[in-house]
Amino acid sequence: MRIDIITSVPELLASPLNESILKRAQDKGLVEIVVHNLHDYAHDRRKTTDDYPFGGEAGMVMKCEPVFELVEKLQSERPYDEIIYTSPDGIRYDQHEANRLSTLENIIILCGHYKGIDHRIREHLVTREISIGDYVLTGGELAACIIADSVVRIIPGAIGDEASALTDSFQDNLLAPPVYTRPAEFRGWRVPDVLLSGNFAEIAKWQDNEAYERTKRLRPDLLNE
Amino acid sequence: MRIDIITSVPELLASPLNESILKRAQDKGLVEIVVHNLHDYAHDRRKTTDDYPFGGEAGMVMKCEPVFELVEKLQSERPYDEIIYTSPDGIRYDQHEANRLSTLENIIILCGHYKGIDHRIREHLVTREISIGDYVLTGGELAACIIADSVVRIIPGAIGDEASALTDSFQDNLLAPPVYTRPAEFRGWRVPDVLLSGNFAEIAKWQDNEAYERTKRLRPDLLNE
Repeated sequence: MRIDIITSVPELLASPLNESILKRAQDKGLVEIVVHNLHDYAHDRRKTTDDYPFGGEAGMVMKCEPVFELVEKLQSERPYDEIIYTSPDGIRYDQHEANRLSTLENIIILCGHYKGIDHRIREHLVTREISIGDYVLTGGELAACIIADSVVRIIPGAIGDEASALTDSFQDNLLAPPVYTRPAEFRGWRVPDVLLSGNFAEIAKWQDNEAYERTKRLRPDLLNE
Repeated sequence: MRIDIITSVPELLASPLNESILKRAQDKGLVEIVVHNLHDYAHDRRKTTDDYPFGGEAGMVMKCEPVFELVEKLQSERPYDEIIYTSPDGIRYDQHEANRLSTLENIIILCGHYKGIDHRIREHLVTREISIGDYVLTGGELAACIIADSVVRIIPGAIGDEASALTDSFQDNLLAPPVYTRPAEFRGWRVPDVLLSGNFAEIAKWQDNEAYERTKRLRPDLLNE
């Protein structure tokens, strides 16, 4: 899989993409993540990628030309399955969408910054608008990292123990059950006895029940999906 | 405001916290963000912060002792309004919660990693569990960055133009209207005439209408809140 990330603030992406799972998956050749600096595709002397909005609102808007030029250059090199723009009014990102994206070959993630991007980019270039949640961020860079992380970690081989990903929250529309580690007693608070019993059938039953009860209490909407 | 972030992978946080708005807000003295390396509070020779889960599941679990020790040290230095744990089964993070957090004095954000944290930390130490969305990440570090970014940018003075934040999506339960910048015509696609008219009353009417129509079409649930 190849993920191209387009940003006007590439330095924001350095540490999330170069540590932990994302680094290991790249080192293993499971994914190639390429960050593009949008300023390299602006041709005025000041390398301007944004400009004032028409209509006199506050904030700056990312311009059409550098984005179209860069995306079309990439498209001339390989086909892309999705050109994603992260925006609060996109479809709501969830584990199903992460699973779907993880099966694609090549995707582009375009990070908005400042007030947003010229709407013509959204109408004529972007194929998928994704919102990671109902809150406003300074830019799309963190959203791009969220998408990259959630997608890459479920590519087979990316995390050491694949069984771990399969028991994550949401993969079966259930929240994960509580987890505990040593010591068995800490400040008088004991780990549930069943987890210390060595009876794996009982443990699995307890975990299934906890997952169901937690979901019913905290996120009943998931049970109806 | 002060934000303490507790992590076992501090290097993940370097670039998001040290660039852009978060850096500027720290430079201006509007917020102090302190990252703590959990390994500094593990006292075995290998500085272990995680261990195998009871019950034999896959994955590793973050241990009680280093977290309790660090949080209690911080609490002995100043009072904290919230001790936040980012988890898929927390309350769903949104702009209202961002607004609320931005009014607090001191908060701690605890980043889970691996399979999760010992449930006793959640029961006896954490005061607020927040989910940034229905997807699973490698760790809570990106979620902590999302919270820090969304909270800090609405502290008065953090972004250059405060009017810009007020017209963001969600602040009035509406999505933002489309934005455009120069050129007025790009590849035959013209900016809506009204935005070029100079008639600010008409422009405001168009923007209000677009915001409402986009919200009705894309996120009708927001109109009922």
